[in-house]
Parts: sequence; structure tokens; C-alpha cells
Amino acid sequence: MKIEYVNPFVEAAVTTFKSMCRVEPVRDGKLELREAGFINTYELIGVIGLTGGVKGAVLMTMDLNVGMKAVGAFLMDEIKEPNTDLMDGFGELLNIIAGAAAAKLEGLHVSLALPTVVIGQNQQMHAKQSNPWLLIPMKFPEWGKFNIEVSMEEV
Amino acid sequence: MKIEYVNPFVEAAVTTFKSMCRVEPVRDGKLELREAGFINTYELIGVIGLTGGVKGAVLMTMDLNVGMKAVGAFLMDEIKEPNTDLMDGFGELLNIIAGAAAAKLEGLHVSLALPTVVIGQNQQMHAKQSNPWLLIPMKFPEWGKFNIEVSMEEV
Repeated sequence: MKIEYVNPFVEAAVTTFKSMCRVEPVRDGKLELREAGFINTYELIGVIGLTGGVKGAVLMTMDLNVGMKAVGAFLMDEIKEPNTDLMDGFGELLNIIAGAAAAKLEGLHVSLALPTVVIGQNQQMHAKQSNPWLLIPMKFPEWGKFNIEVSMEEV
Repeated sequence: MKIEYVNPFVEAAVTTFKSMCRVEPVRDGKLELREAGFINTYELIGVIGLTGGVKGAVLMTMDLNVGMKAVGAFLMDEIKEPNTDLMDGFGELLNIIAGAAAAKLEGLHVSLALPTVVIGQNQQMHAKQSNPWLLIPMKFPEWGKFNIEVSMEEV
């Protein structure tokens, strides 16, 4: 996992939320490299797999209330509780962000899998020393925090 | 999502658990095609993305106590609580199963992303009408139930 892979994901998230949700997220604190152990995550987790010149996965995680705001802005409709629109819209936003980041990593010829969205309580992920997760803490000034999390190995 | 994609995943799961864990899982009830709506899932969720001639994702989900038995058998070591071995071993088993299924789907030239493993409570996934999930209920006669869940679209 190279540090130069970070900016394409940050830029892709900023551009996507600006154009799709009319809101501008910002970096919120230091990058964290999770080399081993459990990682507590927000309630709403989107996962999309990457293949091509890398093998990896990208996650976008946020609390439900933040996700409902973001997806509501995307769909231009208020979301009051976790529903079909929330799950589909969240997966679609992640798909757009990962696609925009992949386009910036053009030398790597990244292909995207289908996004999967999970909600639950007290969720934890796990990082392996061999495939560390790079956590990029971000926030929407209006709504709250979220993370973009990337794990990639070159193949 | 074609129905003929089911058997490669079932066969891959059976072969993998037989050779890696010395246990023989069996199909446990009818396939379910989830075309829309929320799907309750077991506590332990492994996700791996697929690309190539398809775009998709494969999940393996089971309760923690079943996962601890299965991964313990894989590692030939008892697992008494959710730990690093459980998460890494579960991801690795899913990786082997998805790889074996991909090999059987050779015309589709499937590439695998990195597996991601999440644990939590009251977890739900969501199916879209455009990308339904096919749930394959299975069980280990000794330990209990689990699901293999596949969503793929041809590209």
C-alpha cells in the first residue's frame, strides 16, 4: 500500500460529494495505518473490491444519521430511516468515488467489483499485517465524520 | 445472475472445507433469490469482490460460534473468542472458495479482489432489484448453518 494512492481517493471523495451531493467534505485528522488488529467502524459500511494491477478493497463507513444526510442530498429527498434508498444510494456513491479514484490511478488499470452495503451495531473489521488498511478520516462540516478506508496490494 | 453459476460456488465450498477443515458441508434448503429489500445476516461476514467477465461479490456469512469452529479446524487450533486468527482465517477460506469457484467459471475470466471480514450485531445487507443476491443456505452437520451469497452481473 503506497502512500501516493491516498490522494486519488481523497480527491475522488471530495469531487463526488461536491458534484453529487452539493457538500464539500474535508480531511479530518491524520491518516492511520492499521497494520494488525480490530478496527471499530461506523454503522454503515460500503465495500467495493478492486482488481487489475492491484488487488484490494475500498470501504466508506459512516454513522447512519450521517449516511442518511449524504444519501438524501444525493437523491434530493429526505431519508428518515434506513431504507432501500439509503442502501442503494450509499453503494452508488461508493461506486462513483472508487471509479473516480481508479481513473486517477490509470497506470494500475483498476477494475471495480460490485459494491456491498452492510449496516449493523458494534461492527469491527480486522487488518492483517500483510494487507494493512489505510484509514482516511474525513468529515462533512455540516453533518459529521466518515472514513474512507483502502487496502491494496500490487500484483 | 444465472442459475448455472450456483454449482461452482457450492462445489468450491464443499471441496475447500473438506480439504482445508476436514468437514463436509451440505446444502441446507432452497436457494433464495433476494431481489429487493433487507437481508438479515449472520454475525460474521466475509466479502470478496469479483471482476473480469462479470462484476460481482461473494459473501460467506455464519454465526461467530460456527465461524470459530470452522476456522479453528482450518488452523488446527481451538479459537475461543473472536481474534486475529478468526478474521484472517475466515477471509482466507473465502478467498480459497471464491478462487476455486472462479476457476470453474473459466469462460468468465474472473479476478478476485481482497477479502474483507466484518463482525457485528443485528447486521443487515440489502439487495437491489438490478443486482439480486442469490443465497445458498448450507450447513456443517457438526456445527451449524452458514450462507454463501453471490451477486454477479455479466459485463
